[in-house]
Amino acid sequence: MISPDELYEVIRVALTVNGAAAEKAEIQAANLVEGELRGHASHGIRRLRVLIERMRKGLIDPNVEPDLKWIAPAVLRVDGKRGFGPVVAQRAIDEAVARAEETGIALAAISNSSHIGMLAPYVESIAKRGQAALLLTTSEALVHAWGGRRATVGTNPIGIGVPSQGEPLVLDMSTASVSMGKVIDYAATGRALPDGWAVDAFGHPTSDGRAAVDGGAISPFGGPKGYALGIALEALVGVLTATAFGTHVVGTLDTELPATKGDLLICVSLERLGLQGMLPLLEQYFDEVRQTGVAAPVDIPGDRARRARGAHLTNGIRVDREVWTRALAYAEGSLAHD
Amino acid sequence: MISPDELYEVIRVALTVNGAAAEKAEIQAANLVEGELRGHASHGIRRLRVLIERMRKGLIDPNVEPDLKWIAPAVLRVDGKRGFGPVVAQRAIDEAVARAEETGIALAAISNSSHIGMLAPYVESIAKRGQAALLLTTSEALVHAWGGRRATVGTNPIGIGVPSQGEPLVLDMSTASVSMGKVIDYAATGRALPDGWAVDAFGHPTSDGRAAVDGGAISPFGGPKGYALGIALEALVGVLTATAFGTHVVGTLDTELPATKGDLLICVSLERLGLQGMLPLLEQYFDEVRQTGVAAPVDIPGDRARRARGAHLTNGIRVDREVWTRALAYAEGSLAHD
Repeated sequence: MISPDELYEVIRVALTVNGAAAEKAEIQAANLVEGELRGHASHGIRRLRVLIERMRKGLIDPNVEPDLKWIAPAVLRVDGKRGFGPVVAQRAIDEAVARAEETGIALAAISNSSHIGMLAPYVESIAKRGQAALLLTTSEALVHAWGGRRATVGTNPIGIGVPSQGEPLVLDMSTASVSMGKVIDYAATGRALPDGWAVDAFGHPTSDGRAAVDGGAISPFGGPKGYALGIALEALVGVLTATAFGTHVVGTLDTELPATKGDLLICVSLERLGLQGMLPLLEQYFDEVRQTGVAAPVDIPGDRARRARGAHLTNGIRVDREVWTRALAYAEGSLAHD
Repeated sequence: MISPDELYEVIRVALTVNGAAAEKAEIQAANLVEGELRGHASHGIRRLRVLIERMRKGLIDPNVEPDLKWIAPAVLRVDGKRGFGPVVAQRAIDEAVARAEETGIALAAISNSSHIGMLAPYVESIAKRGQAALLLTTSEALVHAWGGRRATVGTNPIGIGVPSQGEPLVLDMSTASVSMGKVIDYAATGRALPDGWAVDAFGHPTSDGRAAVDGGAISPFGGPKGYALGIALEALVGVLTATAFGTHVVGTLDTELPATKGDLLICVSLERLGLQGMLPLLEQYFDEVRQTGVAAPVDIPGDRARRARGAHLTNGIRVDREVWTRALAYAEGSLAHD
């Protein structure tokens, strides 16, 4: 088990050794640690290799300042200029949150920015600043359309934060039934995929992980509704951020291509709208729902990640040995020519 | 089969006979006909009885003007004052769309308004005016929390409209796995419920429709993710419209209580943001997705309802005999003291 502080420090140094300025490296490192803390290793230190390879190839420019422009009174256009996703997102959030205190609602449309990481930390932080937040991001096409073959839709996650009197509601979920990482794990070990996870190259449901990976696709969550939601979010983000759609979204998983996805943030100030009186009522509602649990209290979105975060802060984080060894080497500069 | 024109005329007259002014009756009647045209009888003429009963009891005031106030530059607060849902929504939409042409994005938060009907016609009309739209509405608690017993979450539908070069994307889906109407139908005929539709009073999955109706609840679509999305939308709408949560949402299915749900609209002007160039790219993406169909072209959200609408316009609409007889009686004034 590795302590969160050590994890953070190794990532921070690895990014710095590879050319990132202190402040930018700190934000990006904290982002990966948050992925680990919340129990999503796929958004954690595992991403360090791709980040550093992309930095070395100029696909990420870690020290650039994003270009922010208010193109309408309540709409901010952000050109990330190939910067770190979390750095660009944080700048956009700070601007949009401040503007929403005047206009009530504000939108930030981000393009040309690197992988943003988990959505939860962003919407949670906005909710803790007293604003409701909706955060969307497009991603590589890995999901098939309902009734279709081949991957044409991203895993397009949706993030929602709503302030409450206690802890905010924090939703962060992909519109896919499962992550491609998990399907690859199943394929590697030959385990049968559960029903509803994937289709083969012919668009037929399959339990064979290799068939899913080789020309197949993962399935949307919840059948046709999950597909409909996923493609609606893809359309919304792509149009409003003027970025790519479907198979044209590249550059967050690979180490070869500029990132073409978009990030979309909408935030609404409760204070500006005089809505703080709603917070105790929402908390009361959450408590009513929690108490309906059959075996244990029901989770409100955010509860589970909060528990995982607490446990990881106390007990440390389990990191894959190979991933950790590589991270240490990056931090020591000995993987300078990997 | 009844022609859409005849259906509209009977509803319009029924509302007028019962006290609605011509213009308001026309909007409400057109809304119910749209439900039928798109193949959702649950949002069609079947709702006329509840509407008229609510009008007679003063729970709907058909001729009142909603109170609209811009409480921030981009946020409109709408007090529906017990008016017809579609009438209030249309006023709010017209104001918000016009404002978004200036501010880029605008939000309308509606309270104290009657049932809004299907979301699709609204977001489609906004998309056809060149704006992206997100429309949410809360509804009576009919859905259980994941891992919970009893209904504590609404069926909380989500509506999204995105302009394209051809027909817009139009998403309108409930976050429940099935409608309560369908569960009641199954219960009445003794058919077994499919897996995933409902739980009994103890929170255990059940195939017994009566167990679902008697103290049980319908299930969210897509398992824990559908629940998380549904409660996130409930929190978002409830807080931002300052309306009720969970079991405190009443007044759209019953004929006894004032409506306590909220409607939330966000619209974004593509023209204001210089994004019209994205429309052919989105259309191209939709065509790419359609062509991945295994047996037939894949549907983009909105396609199926568009086909249903075309067929119903040509062939007419099948209406339950009892519902139709009652509507005719309302229109003739012979059910004045029903």
